Amino acid sequence: MNIERTRITGGFWYGRMKNAASRVLWEQLAILKGERPELAHPSPVVENFRIAAGISDGPYQGRVYSDSELGKWIEAASYSLERFEDPALEREIDALVELMIRAQMPDGYLNTYFQVLRPQDRLKHYAFSCELYNMGHLMEASVAYYHATGKRPFLEAMCRAADLLCQRIGPLPHQQHVYDGHAEIELGLLRLYEATGCRRYLDLARYFVDERGKQPCFFLTEALLGDNDEGANDKWFGPDHHQAHMPVRLQRKADGHAVKVTYLYSAVAELAALCEDADGTLLNACRSVWEDMARHRMYLTGAIGSQGYAERFTVDDDLPPDRSYAETCASVGLCFWARRMLTLDRDAGFADVMERALYNGMLAGWSLEGNRYFYVNVLHCKPSVTGYREDNRHIALERQPWFECACCPSNLLRVVCRLDTYLYGAKDDTLYVDGYAQGSVCFRHDAQLWTLSVKTDYPYDGLVRMTLSGGVSGRLRIALRKPDWCDSYALSVNNVPFAATLEKGYLILERLWSAGDVVQLQMDMPAQYIQADPRVWDVEGRVALTRGPLVYCLEGRDHGGSLSGLRYCRDALFQPVPGDGVLAGEVLLTGPGARRPAADRLYSSHAGETQACSLRAIPYFAWNNRGADEMDVWLPLQ
Amino acid sequence: MNIERTRITGGFWYGRMKNAASRVLWEQLAILKGERPELAHPSPVVENFRIAAGISDGPYQGRVYSDSELGKWIEAASYSLERFEDPALEREIDALVELMIRAQMPDGYLNTYFQVLRPQDRLKHYAFSCELYNMGHLMEASVAYYHATGKRPFLEAMCRAADLLCQRIGPLPHQQHVYDGHAEIELGLLRLYEATGCRRYLDLARYFVDERGKQPCFFLTEALLGDNDEGANDKWFGPDHHQAHMPVRLQRKADGHAVKVTYLYSAVAELAALCEDADGTLLNACRSVWEDMARHRMYLTGAIGSQGYAERFTVDDDLPPDRSYAETCASVGLCFWARRMLTLDRDAGFADVMERALYNGMLAGWSLEGNRYFYVNVLHCKPSVTGYREDNRHIALERQPWFECACCPSNLLRVVCRLDTYLYGAKDDTLYVDGYAQGSVCFRHDAQLWTLSVKTDYPYDGLVRMTLSGGVSGRLRIALRKPDWCDSYALSVNNVPFAATLEKGYLILERLWSAGDVVQLQMDMPAQYIQADPRVWDVEGRVALTRGPLVYCLEGRDHGGSLSGLRYCRDALFQPVPGDGVLAGEVLLTGPGARRPAADRLYSSHAGETQACSLRAIPYFAWNNRGADEMDVWLPLQ
Repeated sequence: MNIERTRITGGFWYGRMKNAASRVLWEQLAILKGERPELAHPSPVVENFRIAAGISDGPYQGRVYSDSELGKWIEAASYSLERFEDPALEREIDALVELMIRAQMPDGYLNTYFQVLRPQDRLKHYAFSCELYNMGHLMEASVAYYHATGKRPFLEAMCRAADLLCQRIGPLPHQQHVYDGHAEIELGLLRLYEATGCRRYLDLARYFVDERGKQPCFFLTEALLGDNDEGANDKWFGPDHHQAHMPVRLQRKADGHAVKVTYLYSAVAELAALCEDADGTLLNACRSVWEDMARHRMYLTGAIGSQGYAERFTVDDDLPPDRSYAETCASVGLCFWARRMLTLDRDAGFADVMERALYNGMLAGWSLEGNRYFYVNVLHCKPSVTGYREDNRHIALERQPWFECACCPSNLLRVVCRLDTYLYGAKDDTLYVDGYAQGSVCFRHDAQLWTLSVKTDYPYDGLVRMTLSGGVSGRLRIALRKPDWCDSYALSVNNVPFAATLEKGYLILERLWSAGDVVQLQMDMPAQYIQADPRVWDVEGRVALTRGPLVYCLEGRDHGGSLSGLRYCRDALFQPVPGDGVLAGEVLLTGPGARRPAADRLYSSHAGETQACSLRAIPYFAWNNRGADEMDVWLPLQ
Repeated sequence: MNIERTRITGGFWYGRMKNAASRVLWEQLAILKGERPELAHPSPVVENFRIAAGISDGPYQGRVYSDSELGKWIEAASYSLERFEDPALEREIDALVELMIRAQMPDGYLNTYFQVLRPQDRLKHYAFSCELYNMGHLMEASVAYYHATGKRPFLEAMCRAADLLCQRIGPLPHQQHVYDGHAEIELGLLRLYEATGCRRYLDLARYFVDERGKQPCFFLTEALLGDNDEGANDKWFGPDHHQAHMPVRLQRKADGHAVKVTYLYSAVAELAALCEDADGTLLNACRSVWEDMARHRMYLTGAIGSQGYAERFTVDDDLPPDRSYAETCASVGLCFWARRMLTLDRDAGFADVMERALYNGMLAGWSLEGNRYFYVNVLHCKPSVTGYREDNRHIALERQPWFECACCPSNLLRVVCRLDTYLYGAKDDTLYVDGYAQGSVCFRHDAQLWTLSVKTDYPYDGLVRMTLSGGVSGRLRIALRKPDWCDSYALSVNNVPFAATLEKGYLILERLWSAGDVVQLQMDMPAQYIQADPRVWDVEGRVALTRGPLVYCLEGRDHGGSLSGLRYCRDALFQPVPGDGVLAGEVLLTGPGARRPAADRLYSSHAGETQACSLRAIPYFAWNNRGADEMDVWLPLQ
């Protein structure tokens, strides 16, 4: 079975995809081009390419990884182009791509930082230079743009860049035995391999994975780059920051920089799926690291990275809600990784995590209007404290229009602009429905082209109605993911209850299907309290409110200005209610709670009586769209 | 009424005072002299004085404030000498004092850092130099030593130092209009004034207080000292770090470096008590800052300073138990301040806080054996997390034998070695008993010399039996502090119930007293749960266990190795039981609790059933005497 095309045509994600296409991509482009300073401080990213191309003459500006920001934007814009025709946008990308090709060196090398600032240092520094990381993003962009437009020059340019790397890096004695501190080039090479079938790209990707973590780690001895290696000698920036503390195939825990982990293991999972894993050690590493992450090191929101300093994983069960890092990019990367784990091993658990990350950890990084971003996503905010403490200095009290290190804004669009591809999978004779959104999937099976059309108000409603069309008749399996939050459901085919078997979290509907068949899945979607494993000290004694895949939170402004002393009450029933104002279109939850009133002493042996009150919870992703405020995901339960 | 002498002769504190006299002072001295490296890395402190005196030739080592460490040690040793005769110790101090006098410059200046390293920079840098701070500590030491031994040379030397400052600094046009970033010189000058009656010392102390915080703050423009000014330009090290953001008389909140606040306001309270406060603005500032601190910025243990970075107060109701700074010195300073507030305003609330700080925040800094110290005192420890996170880097998992910045070890001895002076006060015709310990107070009233002898096992038992002797008969008031933790008590005089009036937290016993009169106060001392104001998000939903003035905590080793999932249960009765092993002599508490068992998933909507279990709580000050371990003061209540 082959999926030919997926689309979202309405509902929760559709508006966001349209907004990205019509506004957000354009505004990001303007910022990247250094135009429209009223939107945000102009970015030097495009200008750096102009300098490298000899068109402009200024000094290099920005960080070492700036090139990647343009790469990610082109990739996202290409996905959007595939879905929403836009000749003007296509012309913009054409111009950028032309600029990049012009900036490329004759030998295929392309990296504006090194070309402009340190041409003598090309391909010498790997721990923190992001040199290959940047090229990886441009490779991914080139393939996305090729798929969207059929235009080959950018793809070919990036193949030349890849060819240069294939020449210089590899297992042969005259080659460098290196890899990039920040995994990404592996994914770029795998995209090139997919687009061109050129085996050496796959080989180099596998080489990078195999080389990573060989001891002694060459990062410890390579020449320092200068200002980009700050902290390279402290324990939080050691080899494990780059997943280079032991060979990848031996790794079992999610250690180091959270985004790096997700990018690396996305590549590892792809390699494992491409059968480059004779002894199963890649698969084993992927699964173990995933399991460690999902079992001990992930926020309820699908956010990862508990520490701001070094943007990294820490130790098991350390998940403070108030000073999380929980970078938007890390949840984006987690979606990439989860999607590949699903391909590798059809267990709905991967999609459960992916869905949490999509709707919560990632989406919280994006304002409802679409023009503001969180880099860091906390699960507790009290502006007086959050905005003051030095150990919270990585936390912004409100979403920002852009960042000096602007990795997140274009990265989340890489997911949103092709969100439909996160919903479906195919393997053998099974169509997997991993997520629910209004739209359709076209797939070919036994020479018939089928369309499964989906109607739903998911994630705010658990009713999903799917209609088959296109084909005539055929035996195939449709596997509907039963989300981990779903405790009861009703399933029917053509209005007749269907007793599906449950396989690794999927309801399997195997039968002879005909055009016009209708599948209806009604998932009960009550509000639920969630508690964490008691080893997570940070939220012990507290619960969070969820409904479906959405984590909910409270904001101070809905509770008299403060959340102090609020409690969730056992057995309280929360009802969905429509949001209003800027929250129009979202579903809120209201229900009874309690509040312990402020005391007249700081410490008291006399427990004050709590008072009944009404709570109004909003989706976590929607917080902070009405100004800076107190916010809490976890409340004490009484 | 005049207190002539106070002594502790048995019980809780006596053993600690004896241990200080016979062992701890000697070991500290050996470290300060750079001897006995088996105890701790040798300190350069005494050697610096030898270099300044021209006896030794090495380079200056240590921090700018090293001199103060020796000053505090001499002060503590002098207090101990007054109580436990020790000619050998006296000879040691004589030698140190001689060395200091030899190091002093002809004009009275004494500061080894500037003398050895930067003679040209004398009296030019005030924000972070600790130049006057060091001299203040030497002044306090000189007075303590004079009181203990009657020997004047050191006192006279420090008067010469004070005279130099009186010449150079002050309100006259040719004088410098400055003050030290770290308050302390004020206290040193006040001690000199007390010992000599020399008014100019009082005047300079008041000048420093009046000058502090005049705007624009000269710290912002004074030349930087170099490596000692790191961070001088960030918001946590701004003028408020030194309480210099506004004139002292206008200050209303506890802002900045926690120890600095306590030293400054100790001096302010003294000045107010010395009637140097015609319009009451000093008193007003003292009371307001105290109230803000005690109401919003103090840990249950009487520890202060919520942030490691800049060792400072943060904002109201920010009291994280896991990453507190809660420096031992800050609790010591709080005791200094509280004692002076009591003198100024006989409200037992000051003694309540002082007692919390003495028994908990300060004492936790000292191992039971007496030879290990915590600089930072957390209220939660989970070694895997506490020892890993970058934002916990200020936290040690076990008490240390010494510190590079060794302010705390000698500082806590300044309190312990004359702990008896924290127990009693006198004003007009009233003897105040602020705390309870086996021992006695001799006081003169109406020409009669009385002794009140106290028998008690406080703080582990609430029974206090006091006997008057010495005098014949007289009308006077004995005011017994009813601690804030005490809800019920029985009071008798000569076995007859006595109906005392309660005034500002004191039980007032006013009658005609005769020798042989016996007062008995029986305070019920049940274990109690304490909850914090709900605005303290960090411990919302949690309670702490206390008994009498002691805060209790749990250690992992008493609970199967881990505290995860443990809960206090409502209405559970805790019973005192004797400690054993290293905890012999301390009273523990046992009672029923509950544990939520580890889950098989990180997040779950199905609340696991808690299981009944037995809890064994130990005094907070006694934690970490059996090795690094999990520790919690605050547990969820169920």
